[in-house]
Amino acid sequence: MSKSDQTSITSAFTPLLGRIRDQRPLVHHITNMVVMNDTANITLAIGASPVMAHAIEEVEEMVRLAKALVLNIGTLTPVQIEAMLRAGKRANELGIPIVLDPVGAGATSLRTQSALQLLHDLRISALRGNASEVGTLVGVAAETRGVDSLSLSEDREVVARRAAETFGCTVAITGACDVVTDGQRLARVENGDPLLATITGSGCMVTSLVGAFLAVESDAWLATTAGMVAMGLAGEMAATKAAGPGTFRSHLLDAVAALNEETLARGQKVSVA
Amino acid sequence: MSKSDQTSITSAFTPLLGRIRDQRPLVHHITNMVVMNDTANITLAIGASPVMAHAIEEVEEMVRLAKALVLNIGTLTPVQIEAMLRAGKRANELGIPIVLDPVGAGATSLRTQSALQLLHDLRISALRGNASEVGTLVGVAAETRGVDSLSLSEDREVVARRAAETFGCTVAITGACDVVTDGQRLARVENGDPLLATITGSGCMVTSLVGAFLAVESDAWLATTAGMVAMGLAGEMAATKAAGPGTFRSHLLDAVAALNEETLARGQKVSVA
Amino acid sequence: MSKSDQTSITSAFTPLLGRIRDQRPLVHHITNMVVMNDTANITLAIGASPVMAHAIEEVEEMVRLAKALVLNIGTLTPVQIEAMLRAGKRANELGIPIVLDPVGAGATSLRTQSALQLLHDLRISALRGNASEVGTLVGVAAETRGVDSLSLSEDREVVARRAAETFGCTVAITGACDVVTDGQRLARVENGDPLLATITGSGCMVTSLVGAFLAVESDAWLATTAGMVAMGLAGEMAATKAAGPGTFRSHLLDAVAALNEETLARGQKVSVA
Repeated sequence: MSKSDQTSITSAFTPLLGRIRDQRPLVHHITNMVVMNDTANITLAIGASPVMAHAIEEVEEMVRLAKALVLNIGTLTPVQIEAMLRAGKRANELGIPIVLDPVGAGATSLRTQSALQLLHDLRISALRGNASEVGTLVGVAAETRGVDSLSLSEDREVVARRAAETFGCTVAITGACDVVTDGQRLARVENGDPLLATITGSGCMVTSLVGAFLAVESDAWLATTAGMVAMGLAGEMAATKAAGPGTFRSHLLDAVAALNEETLARGQKVSVA
Repeated sequence: MSKSDQTSITSAFTPLLGRIRDQRPLVHHITNMVVMNDTANITLAIGASPVMAHAIEEVEEMVRLAKALVLNIGTLTPVQIEAMLRAGKRANELGIPIVLDPVGAGATSLRTQSALQLLHDLRISALRGNASEVGTLVGVAAETRGVDSLSLSEDREVVARRAAETFGCTVAITGACDVVTDGQRLARVENGDPLLATITGSGCMVTSLVGAFLAVESDAWLATTAGMVAMGLAGEMAATKAAGPGTFRSHLLDAVAALNEETLARGQKVSVA
Repeated sequence: MSKSDQTSITSAFTPLLGRIRDQRPLVHHITNMVVMNDTANITLAIGASPVMAHAIEEVEEMVRLAKALVLNIGTLTPVQIEAMLRAGKRANELGIPIVLDPVGAGATSLRTQSALQLLHDLRISALRGNASEVGTLVGVAAETRGVDSLSLSEDREVVARRAAETFGCTVAITGACDVVTDGQRLARVENGDPLLATITGSGCMVTSLVGAFLAVESDAWLATTAGMVAMGLAGEMAATKAAGPGTFRSHLLDAVAALNEETLARGQKVSVA
């Protein structure tokens, strides 16, 4: 990676935060019940406006008001998947970007099949998962423990590129180093802190941040990379104040709210391959 | 507003907090999944006892045990509305007061129609919403962004009075200044802090506080005003300790628990028109 | 209780924490929506891996991956009870231990009957409730307020022993002093802090801890006692840093994560009868 590449991505994504805060876009979530409060609060903290609405009777009407749609299958049911398909189809008609979080794909066939159906029936802008979730979706042997990723039989960057090609979208695999690729460009984001893995839903929260960035930026690879950097950097800031996972969770929201374009530009640890 | 009016409302609502803590009334919630934890915790913090129960098979039996019923349509489904109607009818038969939070009315027809049905079919004691939600319910042009209120084509106090007359109940419109009216009396509550708007569910939480006050006070206007003051004052106290929305949320619960009749009387910023 | 008994239980349960952290067992929860985030986070804090999955279409497949199953009826519906029965039967076939939290048994017949059905149709390893919930299940007159226990017409230890005999499992009744018995052995755990009663779901959280200990220890009485000690001790540690229920909740997760075998052994207040 050349110095100029790094400068160019930094200068490309730093204005996005200002756009979120100026436009305060509505981000429609159809998401899991475990982390619904945290995903709403982190969406507010980055400067966007969350709405959680999942009834089949209203999702198509609600998504029309939104600038991005977040689909997260963490506590899926068949009825909820049907609501996701309806909202997603309407979003596609209207050009509203969608980010998908395939929580637990690989753990049960309901999760794997539902994620694949959403990827097949909808035009997804960004797919954000851990290594075993994304690996499962492209048929790479992966070891999971419930919703946690344990190991992968192939290189994560290879898997991410394959998923991007297979599904025709930007793919982010998060972990100690996050990988974001659209099949052509590939960013490695090294921001983050081990405390992020000690709270439930940090993956879901970064997916919500991706939704907020997608709402203001049509280049999904750039928006997704910006989401990774924002979460990782906020995690680093929160870790300096936390005494454990409980206080970390509070400081994390404070840190997301305190992000600005200067801290983002100065703190980002992104390289482009 | 005369000095004596202000003294009289202060002396009227300060004893209510003591009554909540003496009686520890059960407050039955049929409410949204996003903020269910916060609404339970704030109900405990003010001194009441929350129970969240939504199954159609048990709501009528559960509400019999309660001193107030909180209905909140934040993540409504048709089945949940049916449970609300059943619990509400039983509550009406037993003289148990009901507070309704019409979250997102105006954003989708499911929300608007469900809120209107609850107001039509049940005898509601207090309706608590933001300006666009309440405006929508009385046919005033309002601009919403999902569950957020943006602007209203008419004066908020006029809208609140019209809603109170239309629905025959106390109406509270919350915002930078809260307005509470039963059609006759009108209170303006200026307690609060901008941080309250940075966390999800602060509106839902104040609705739960109204439920706790309704459980011990039959004058719904007085109980609703007390709920507004308690939330606003706790918000002010929490803001002095918070570094952002995450820590604010923790301090808010501490502050509600720390409220006492003296801080309420001394800190309230209420005027009566 | 002799000094040697106390030493023996201490030395018996202190290694369990290390086992959890070494094995990081998956704990499958079918649980309530109010405290789902807290129960996931406390499971992570003790060192295990939570998964929340409740769809009938996946619970049997998910539970196969788990080392323990937590069933909590706090926001039950008939469909959710059906999912619990399916997951529980599969767990029984595979020898995976189950802990049941009969939240609100006694408040409505749906809750009482559902808890009794789960106890009848499944082989439960541990039942964890408050005095009135457990009393109700063995026919002892109990006074409840929603999901809170008020009073019991009989001695709590007698009730716990009767429940252990009736249901053939370990029974824990939590309160100011927790009682844990398998019908033969009885432990009294005096760890804890009054702040635990000021937040919603502290009972649900200790049930999740019991699930984590059951995942690594086949002696259910020992595992359940360890869960009580861990929660009570963490509550004591958190109380020294908290200024109210909101900050207590954050510090509680920090304290659970900070527990180690030495603090557990040194801080435990357990006696065996």
